[in-house]
Formats: sequence, structure tokens, C-alpha cells
Amino acid sequence: MNQGSMLSVALLCLVLFTGLAPTPSLAVGSLDAVIEAQMYNRAIHIMAMLLIGFGFLMVFVRGYGLSALTATYMMVAVSLPGYLLIKSFGWFGHAPTGIEAMILAEFSAASLLICAGAVLGRLKIWQYMLMAVLFLSAYMLNEWILLEGGWGLIATGAFVDTGGSIVIHAFGALFGLGVAVSMTTRKDRDISPAAEYTSDRFSLLGSMVLWVFWPSFCAALVAPEMIPATVMNVVAALCGSTILTYFGTLLLRREIDAADIANATLAGGVAIGSTCDKVSLPVALAIGAVAGFVSTFGFAVLQGKMEKLHRIVDTCGVSNLHGIPGLLGGFAALIVVSGIDKGAQLLGIGITVAIAVVAGLASGKLLSLTGHRSDSYEDSEEFAGE
Amino acid sequence: MNQGSMLSVALLCLVLFTGLAPTPSLAVGSLDAVIEAQMYNRAIHIMAMLLIGFGFLMVFVRGYGLSALTATYMMVAVSLPGYLLIKSFGWFGHAPTGIEAMILAEFSAASLLICAGAVLGRLKIWQYMLMAVLFLSAYMLNEWILLEGGWGLIATGAFVDTGGSIVIHAFGALFGLGVAVSMTTRKDRDISPAAEYTSDRFSLLGSMVLWVFWPSFCAALVAPEMIPATVMNVVAALCGSTILTYFGTLLLRREIDAADIANATLAGGVAIGSTCDKVSLPVALAIGAVAGFVSTFGFAVLQGKMEKLHRIVDTCGVSNLHGIPGLLGGFAALIVVSGIDKGAQLLGIGITVAIAVVAGLASGKLLSLTGHRSDSYEDSEEFAGE
Amino acid sequence: MNQGSMLSVALLCLVLFTGLAPTPSLAVGSLDAVIEAQMYNRAIHIMAMLLIGFGFLMVFVRGYGLSALTATYMMVAVSLPGYLLIKSFGWFGHAPTGIEAMILAEFSAASLLICAGAVLGRLKIWQYMLMAVLFLSAYMLNEWILLEGGWGLIATGAFVDTGGSIVIHAFGALFGLGVAVSMTTRKDRDISPAAEYTSDRFSLLGSMVLWVFWPSFCAALVAPEMIPATVMNVVAALCGSTILTYFGTLLLRREIDAADIANATLAGGVAIGSTCDKVSLPVALAIGAVAGFVSTFGFAVLQGKMEKLHRIVDTCGVSNLHGIPGLLGGFAALIVVSGIDKGAQLLGIGITVAIAVVAGLASGKLLSLTGHRSDSYEDSEEFAGE
Repeated sequence: MNQGSMLSVALLCLVLFTGLAPTPSLAVGSLDAVIEAQMYNRAIHIMAMLLIGFGFLMVFVRGYGLSALTATYMMVAVSLPGYLLIKSFGWFGHAPTGIEAMILAEFSAASLLICAGAVLGRLKIWQYMLMAVLFLSAYMLNEWILLEGGWGLIATGAFVDTGGSIVIHAFGALFGLGVAVSMTTRKDRDISPAAEYTSDRFSLLGSMVLWVFWPSFCAALVAPEMIPATVMNVVAALCGSTILTYFGTLLLRREIDAADIANATLAGGVAIGSTCDKVSLPVALAIGAVAGFVSTFGFAVLQGKMEKLHRIVDTCGVSNLHGIPGLLGGFAALIVVSGIDKGAQLLGIGITVAIAVVAGLASGKLLSLTGHRSDSYEDSEEFAGE
Repeated sequence: MNQGSMLSVALLCLVLFTGLAPTPSLAVGSLDAVIEAQMYNRAIHIMAMLLIGFGFLMVFVRGYGLSALTATYMMVAVSLPGYLLIKSFGWFGHAPTGIEAMILAEFSAASLLICAGAVLGRLKIWQYMLMAVLFLSAYMLNEWILLEGGWGLIATGAFVDTGGSIVIHAFGALFGLGVAVSMTTRKDRDISPAAEYTSDRFSLLGSMVLWVFWPSFCAALVAPEMIPATVMNVVAALCGSTILTYFGTLLLRREIDAADIANATLAGGVAIGSTCDKVSLPVALAIGAVAGFVSTFGFAVLQGKMEKLHRIVDTCGVSNLHGIPGLLGGFAALIVVSGIDKGAQLLGIGITVAIAVVAGLASGKLLSLTGHRSDSYEDSEEFAGE
Repeated sequence: MNQGSMLSVALLCLVLFTGLAPTPSLAVGSLDAVIEAQMYNRAIHIMAMLLIGFGFLMVFVRGYGLSALTATYMMVAVSLPGYLLIKSFGWFGHAPTGIEAMILAEFSAASLLICAGAVLGRLKIWQYMLMAVLFLSAYMLNEWILLEGGWGLIATGAFVDTGGSIVIHAFGALFGLGVAVSMTTRKDRDISPAAEYTSDRFSLLGSMVLWVFWPSFCAALVAPEMIPATVMNVVAALCGSTILTYFGTLLLRREIDAADIANATLAGGVAIGSTCDKVSLPVALAIGAVAGFVSTFGFAVLQGKMEKLHRIVDTCGVSNLHGIPGLLGGFAALIVVSGIDKGAQLLGIGITVAIAVVAGLASGKLLSLTGHRSDSYEDSEEFAGE
């Protein structure tokens, strides 16, 4: 560990210990207090996705499992207090309190982990933590503009994205692609971490953990009376993408690919995010089914071509799981939500793409300055006794 | 994939996209809305059992893990919307709404996965999905007769089975045995998938996941004021079966068998289902203890004999974990529930056995027509790169 | 299995089947009933920690995974009803009812599993169960004195320990060390189970499961209106210890040690227990950060020295994860909680240390009488086909 990273640690610690206020509480024994404590259960489900779900996805990346797990751990530990800290500065709208604050911080951590999937295997642990800080700033700017009327570009409430298809999934994937593009050298393309990444059945278990808790992710901030319809829509979308992934992988590859099953099954959850509390059950199932097929197409057909043509190495295929299905979900809102402000929706998607790509490219350059290697890292470089 | 299965896919998709109505909502900010949102937490716990619990049980079936995981995924994805769709036709009583609908659909998926345990390793992925459709029809007919007064055979509410010892566990196990019997050829008996199935310590982890969330399964539809007594009874029953499984395996085998520990520990949860909200804590513990010992006896003594005598190959031993303990739980209600309608209880158990066995045998014949192999499938036959 | 253990089984069963009363219920449809049912969700989260979290930590202990998992299963199954049974005798204060009773029983099981971590690999399964009974008596005596005014030593409510830094973590660790010391022979010290214990990446996943549900552990018995502040403090403390563990392991070892990451990341959760509902967010983060560094120091520097000097073999390093951070949390309350009764706090900590060490040493002697081996057990000695 060099001097620069030690300094950044010291600064980070200093910053973390100041400025966070204790959260206020609702009236004792009131229904509102019970509703907020209920929201807490969904917050914990999201935490299970962040650490246990992503953890399983990471645990058997060949020769890199310990690094991937540790990086996941550290990115979560940096982004949760980091989000709250930056919010407390007042730069990006109001500072949320209580469980709402916890859930918004978890959303930022989820988006960050998606982003990290694009560059997995090509950073050292402390570089993931540095990327977390860079990512958070851009993420919070985008969130503020789209959802809180930041800079007056989009009226508060006009952009439809309850479960974060655009703000969380598409943003994270595009930022990650930006970092990957500006960090990837010619030599990187000769190795294929993606091929190795997906080889183990534990990624199927990780996928299942994410599937199970996905309804809580989308309904995290939804009012109690809308919970039933919202969560059932999410389950329907996931069922749709799961079934279509099976037929898609068979149709496109003539045999079943375990990586397709572990990934594209979740595309319904990504795509239903924007409209999860606004559509009927069959529409949710249809959105999920389309997303599942499109995502499978991405993994089976596009991934190889993209890497050849555009020289992008997207380690975990986040563009196929989060990027394209996320955008699909955001655009689907234009069709299925009656009375939607189409201009605001399109503008919001455009802003997201712009901020994510530009900030991602810039962050990749910055990260390259702190050290870059053309071949993948292995656990043995940072871990004892491996 | 042949033409027939492509057609069935197309039909399935067509059917899935129509006929499901959005679910209504309760009054904003009302206590009822909070109670339904609370029920949602238990619905997610059941989902964790279906995918994560069964997932761990499946992940290291030798040479068949990817298939077992994918089959589990697909059966869940087909049965959840399938149950809601068939219910919406009005053939089997009222169509439930909201979280109640989600939980009832999950119950059907749980029963289906139990059923699939009996034939694990002997179907292709799309055959599991076809079996799901056949299973659902029979399951919903039985559920309607026992719990909703279908055909006027049993008065609504007279059959005691809160947590599904009979309707979910015994039905699933017996249907699965029916399928296994009518699909099993002489050659099948020479191989023993059961012996291989249970060899890994991950099945112990899967067992633990099911154990942890079992109280939510039994209490899923129970009113808030009965939750405490119900969940504690389930925990007591599980503790009883866990302790007796240990002593049972030592007594019957003179050493500990990991498969017994991974399975019979759960028998208390199966058996307490019928009466979980109606008995005192010591009675619950006693029911669980008896079920644990009986189930261990089944695995240690009966399993080998049954396979030799009756030529049944029950891959995961579902008769010992779900069949016998489920029936035990249903019969136990006759003794421990005061004022129970004994005629209705016995009739309900008899109807369940009849429908499950007959429909299972018929489904097995039908599945055989779509293709049958005498040796077990392996991942390499359907999965890429294995 | 010898005659003595058979007798103890028979007695245990007899005892378990008597004396437990059904739990009362709150008024139908009342907010209080909803609040208690909500508490149930946290009870299930704790159960997930006990079996799934500890399960992952145990699953790949080399050559001992099946034994470790089975021992965990059995200790949970004995201690949950055991706690309720002993409480029903009235020796240690009032007998709790409903979900509160379930959570208090889970706390005792958690403390027992921590204790067992110190002697993992050196007991047979039935000895773990015997230790459970010995442990419970001492645990409940200490809990009664510290929290319920037992023997009039400490006024009820004067001892600050909401999330159990002292009562659960420090007590379990110290009792376990006591057992380890009085059971450890010279020959034991030549083998090093600790070195093998931590080698697998699954312990990282187990750590993550514990991390995720830790807020529910600390907030289990907290009123709804205090849930938000409490759980966010716990998350902040865990983030603090996670970040400091990374920098600690790098600083002290010059490379990352996976065992440090799997363990010391949780020290923040241990240390924040005492004060989780009483401090502000930055203070919680600071307590967690200090605990994370101290715990890493324990694993990286102290562990080897302790084993050499004091001839203690602490298999899982519970003194570094639960002992020292637990005491740290209890002492931290003296500084950060305004108006705390310092005498009561110090007395409570002293009593905990005294009871845990004395009862642990005595239990170790007793366990030695039932059989002791100087080399570690392996699965093959008790399990079939290993």
C-alpha cells in the first residue's frame, strides 16, 4: 500500500467521523412508527441482495473469489455512510432521515456494485473503494436531477422510476462501461475474464437470492397499501423473464447456458423497476418476458460481438443484464403508464446516459492514473497464503 | 428442442399474457393495509425457502446440479403465475387477491418442488415444466375440495390443515411417488441417484435455510394476534425433530448419517403444519419429536426396503420427509385438536391420497410419452460446456 | 453412544415434554398485535444468523464440516426449548411470553454458539449438547442478575446492554475460553485448528450473512419508534469496522488476510450492542471503527502470542471477535451514554467476567470427565461413509 492510499484512508476516516446527525423518531406507539419499522424489513432484504446475493455471484470467480468478495464488502461499507455523509452536505437536495435514508443509501450501493461488475478483476481493493467515492458523486447528482428537481430540469415526480430501472440499473451499468472502456488496453482484450466468471453453479444460487428479495427492492419506498400490487408485479416480471430465458437460451444456443440462466432470469426485475407500482399483472409479466429474452440475446449473441468490435471487456456482462433491460424498463413506461410526461421521461433517460458515460469515462482515466495492469488480478497478489 | 415443445411454449406464453387482473388495494394508511404488507414478509420468507432452501439442496447433486437448479427455477416461474391464472378462471372457487394470492401460489410451488424431488434426475427441464402444469390442476382441485368446500364434500373450515401437512406436503410427496412409479422401468432400479444425492454438506445448509423460514411458511396466512403462538409451536416442533433425528440416526445406524440430519430434522415442520395454531408448546414439541424419529426410521430403514420391494426410486426420499410426516400431522389433529370434525378430517386425508396417487400415476404415464430414458440425466446433456 | 448419554437423552426428552405453557395472544386486530408480529421478523433474522450465518462459517472447516454443522443444529435445537423450559421454573425471574420469549431464547443460543467456537473440533456431538445445558444455566443466571435485578445486585434497567455486547458476546466468549482452558492438554497445542478453520471463502459468505441481519439482532426487542435510529447505528458501526479491518490487515500484515476480513468486519456489530439505541450515527461509526481495528489487531498479533504464552487454543478466535470487542462495547457505554450509572455498568461487567470464566472452567472439567481426546475430531469418527 503506497503513501497516497494511506493518505486517502486518513482523509476518509476523518470525514466519516463528522457531520452525521442522529435520526429523528416518530411518535411512540403510532401507526407511522410501525409503518417505518415495516419499511426496515425491506431495507434488510436489500442488504441481503447486496452482500449475500452479490456474494454468491462472486464466491467462485476463478482465482479471484476472495478479492471479489472483499471488494464487495468494502464498496458496501464505503457507500452506505458515504451516501449519507454527502447528502448531509445539502449539495444534492434534502437529506433524508430514518429508514428512507438507509434505503436510498442501499440503492446507491446496489448501483455501485452493478458498475463494479463491468471492471471486476481489474482493480485492486483500494481502487474499488476510490471508485466508490467517484461513483457516488455522479450517482447522487443524477438522482437529484431526475427525482428531486435538481437544477430545475425535471419537475419532481414527473420522472417515473419507482424501482430504479434507470436511476439504479442503467446508470450503474453505463458508468461501469465508461470505466471499463477508458481503462481497457489492447492487451486486456486477449484475456476473457467473462468466460471464466460465469462457470460456477454458485452464480445460480446468487441469482436466486437476488430473485427472492427483488420485490422488496422495488417496493422498498412504496406505501403499505400499494405493496401487494407492486410486489406481485415484480414477481410476475421475474417469472416472465425466467421462463423466456430458458426458451431464449435453447433457441439461440441450441443448448442451455448456465450463465444465461444465472443472469437473464433477473432481467424482468431490472425492467419492471420503472413501472412496478403502475401496471397490471399481465403487463408486468409481458415486460419481464421481453426483458428476459432481450437479455438472453445480449449474453448469447451481442456480448462476443461487442467485445470484438468495440474492444470493451464487460466482465460480468452488466450491459446485458442491467444496461439494456434498464433502458427497456424506462422506455416501457412511455407506453404503459397513462398520462406520463413523455418529455420528462425521455429527458431523464438522456441525462442518465450522459452523466453515467461521461463520469464513467473520466473516473476510468483517473483510476488508470493510480495504477493499471493489463492482465487480470489474482487473489495471490493481495491475499496472504493464497 | 422439438416442435412439440416449441408449440407448448407458444401456447404457454399466449396464455400467460392474458386474463390476470391487477390486485386491489386497501385503504391508504389503514391498519389493514399494514397487516397485509406485514404478511408480505412471510411471503418473501417462503420464496427464500423455494429458491434458496431448495437451491442449496440441489446445488451439489452429483453431475446434475445445474439441471436441478434450473429445473427448480423454472418450476417456480411456471407455477406462481400458473396458479393465479387458473384461479382466475373460477373453476376452483374464488380467486384470491393481494398477498394472500401470492402465498397460496407459493404453497402450490412448494408442493410441486416436493413432488419433483421424487423424480429428480429423470426428466428434462421442459418436462419438469410440463409436470408443473399437470401437477397444478390436481393440486388446485384437491385444495378446493378440502379447504373451500369444493363439490360440497367437506364443509369450509372443517378440515384442519393451517400449515399444509396434508394439502401441501403429503399431496406433493404422493403425487411425486405416483409419477415415479409409472415412469420407473426395471433398468432404473439398478442405479441409485438417492445415494449420490445426499452426499454433500450443502444439503445441510439447505436444510437449515428451510428450518429458519419454516415458521413463516406455517404462519403465512395466520392473523397477527395468533402469530406468536403459531411460530413458537413450529420452532418447538422443529427443535423436537432435530434432537430426535440425532438420537434416531445414532440408534438405527450406530453412527451419524448426514442425509438423515439434512432431512429428518425438518419432519417436525412438516408434521406440525396441520395443527400449528391450535396446540400448546409441549404438544408441538412432542409432535415434532415423533415425526423426527419416524422420518429418520424411514430414511435409515424403510427407504432401502421400499426400493427393493416396490421398485420405486424416490430420488430425494420425499416419502420419508414429506409423505409419512405429513400424514402423521394430519392424523395427529384428530387427537390433539378438541372438537375437531373427525369425519371431515379423515375424508380430507383420504381424498388427498386418492387424487395425488391417481393424478400422479396418470401424469407419469403422460410424461413417459414425451420421452423417457432409463438412466439418469446428467448436466452435460442439456448444458453448454459441461 | 454409551449408556450414560442414552440416559441423558431419555431425561432430556422427559423434561422437554412437560411444563411449557402455550403463549397468550394480544387483542384481535390491535396495533399491539401487529407490533408483536413485526418483532417476529427480527426473530427470524436472528434465526438466519444462528443457522445460516454460523452454518456458512462451519461448512468448510477442513475434515470437520459435517460435525460442525450438525453440532450447530443440535445446540440451537437444545437451547431454544431449554431456555424456555428453565425460565418456566421461575428460578431466574419472570418467564417471558410470545415473541419476546423467542428472541431471548435465540440470544442464549447465539451466546452458546459463540462459546462453542472456542472449542470447535474438540467435542463429540453429544458433548456439545451437554455443554449447551451447562452453558444455559450460567447464562441465565448472569442475564437475570444484570438485566432483571437478580439477587438485588444491579437495579433493573441500570445496566446498559441493549444488543448484548456484554451479556451475549463477552459472556459467550469468556465461557468458551474457560472451557477451552480446562479441556486443553499440552498435546492439543501442537495442532492448530485455527489455522485450518479460516481457510475458506465460505467463511466470508457466513460473515456477510451475519453482517446483513445484525441490525435485527441489536434491535430485536427495541420499540418501533426507536428502530430507525438503532438499526442505522448498527449499520454505521459495521461499516466502520469493515473499513478499518481492511486497513488494519494491510497495516499489520502487509497483505490482506481473508480470515481477518471474515471476522473483524463484524466487530463493530459486537461493540455497538451495548449502546446501539443511545448514540448518534458518527459515534456509532467511531465505536465500530475502533472495534474493527482492535479485533484485527487481535487476530493478526495477539492470537499467536496468546496461544504460545497461555497455552489456550481458541479455535475460531472468539476472544478477538466477541470477547475483546464485547468488553469494549460495554466500557464504551461509560463514556458515550450520558447519565449512565457507572457503578452498575462496571459491576455488571465484572459479574459477567466472573460467572463466565468460573462456570466455563468448571464446565470444561465436567466435559473432560465425559471423554477427552488430545487430537482434533474428524467427521469420519462419527459420520457414516466419510
